[in-house]
Amino acid sequence: MTSSPNPTAAIIVIGDEILSGRTKDKNIGWLAEQLGALGIQLGEARVIADKKQMIIDTVQTLSKTYDLVFTSGGIGPTHDDITTDAVAVAFDVPVIRHPEAERRLILHYANTDLEFNAARQKMADIPDTAALIDNPLSAAPGYIIGNVHVLPGVPTILQAMFEGLKSRLPGGVVMTRITVQCATGEGNIATILLDVETGYKGVSVGSYPWMKPGNFGTAVVVSGLDVAVTTAAAKAVEAGVRAFGAEANIVNADGTLQG
Amino acid sequence: MTSSPNPTAAIIVIGDEILSGRTKDKNIGWLAEQLGALGIQLGEARVIADKKQMIIDTVQTLSKTYDLVFTSGGIGPTHDDITTDAVAVAFDVPVIRHPEAERRLILHYANTDLEFNAARQKMADIPDTAALIDNPLSAAPGYIIGNVHVLPGVPTILQAMFEGLKSRLPGGVVMTRITVQCATGEGNIATILLDVETGYKGVSVGSYPWMKPGNFGTAVVVSGLDVAVTTAAAKAVEAGVRAFGAEANIVNADGTLQG
Repeated sequence: MTSSPNPTAAIIVIGDEILSGRTKDKNIGWLAEQLGALGIQLGEARVIADKKQMIIDTVQTLSKTYDLVFTSGGIGPTHDDITTDAVAVAFDVPVIRHPEAERRLILHYANTDLEFNAARQKMADIPDTAALIDNPLSAAPGYIIGNVHVLPGVPTILQAMFEGLKSRLPGGVVMTRITVQCATGEGNIATILLDVETGYKGVSVGSYPWMKPGNFGTAVVVSGLDVAVTTAAAKAVEAGVRAFGAEANIVNADGTLQG
Repeated sequence: MTSSPNPTAAIIVIGDEILSGRTKDKNIGWLAEQLGALGIQLGEARVIADKKQMIIDTVQTLSKTYDLVFTSGGIGPTHDDITTDAVAVAFDVPVIRHPEAERRLILHYANTDLEFNAARQKMADIPDTAALIDNPLSAAPGYIIGNVHVLPGVPTILQAMFEGLKSRLPGGVVMTRITVQCATGEGNIATILLDVETGYKGVSVGSYPWMKPGNFGTAVVVSGLDVAVTTAAAKAVEAGVRAFGAEANIVNADGTLQG
């Protein structure tokens, strides 16, 4: 991948349940798509345990390395929800009871038969100076501190909160990504792909073989920030593979032929 | 999570296609389950880009921190497959054409109508001193160097290769993991859970709220290396939640009531 003027990002998924295999992470894939659509370049994602020092170290390292960091998990009411304590230490600020967060939670629980007890009140505690991220589903907010965006682990809630957060994120030029479906093994066209990547500045060429019963091929993904250069590179792949003697076609996002 | 005498592990998923959101990773979740079943404690997983220096740094850092490292992706025939070059640098050894790997690939391609060209021959190149991991599906081997196990990115091939690799991994005591289904919100029972985790040495208590139309509850997962202590702790959660006034039951792995 070539370097880009777009904002960069990292994701930190916090949760023993992902590392034990009990729960399958859905947030990395979903956020990756969203960030890509905003022109934000995801550089790395880490899944880490519910261990305070590990969260502190990872937040500090990645918030220095990337423009934006997104965390998921560990902001609920139980003892294993330690993300807020760790993020506060990472930014060297105290955890405070946030009046607006508390107001929203009181309002939310008044409409349920659940008690707003000490455990649930913990969800109104956030690092000092952090700005709230609205939670349209279950009231308990996320927050932004520095360049770190703290979100919950439950995918539906994370997704609803991210939708509201989008407009506050710095955008970039959206990457142009063109798929060339090639009816041949990737090993047959490796030289063609390398030549295109070398010949078109700022363009990256990825090669993804696939196999179905009775059929196989390679999806070649040509991506870059410049639409014209990227399109030219994709056409060069198409022409190169056809010249080699295999069928090759630029396809739409849904896999259907263009034209 | 408490410290354990079991081997520890990390996973490195290498691939721009995961970070762009184009492909959803399946290997972290699958490997996490497999490692758990073998008594190997997965400490962290990282998804990184097809960038040589990043692969080198990540392999070096994680192979020093964990007993075992598993990588997925980047060992195919095209120019974006740079895992082997990077791993060789990480271990300061040259890349060699491995005679046995080459023999297997020649045999494999002789049975196809694909040419064993220069790009495909690259799949016989591995870091010097590495030991092969058999590939029962498509011949191109993975390998072990130091404590690092290099596997492909395609999930079916990774899975087939891991099955053969299992018997060569150091095992541990398999973690006992007991689920207590509680018909109440996690915020109601946070204190009970904390008390159990504090009171039962070596036991970790995770709390996973769930919601369905018209119903909600909390799956409490009690885990530990000692079966008797872990079982006692799970029973203490069950009893505590019942004493609070909510239904609570230890369930089987498939969610049915134990009888």
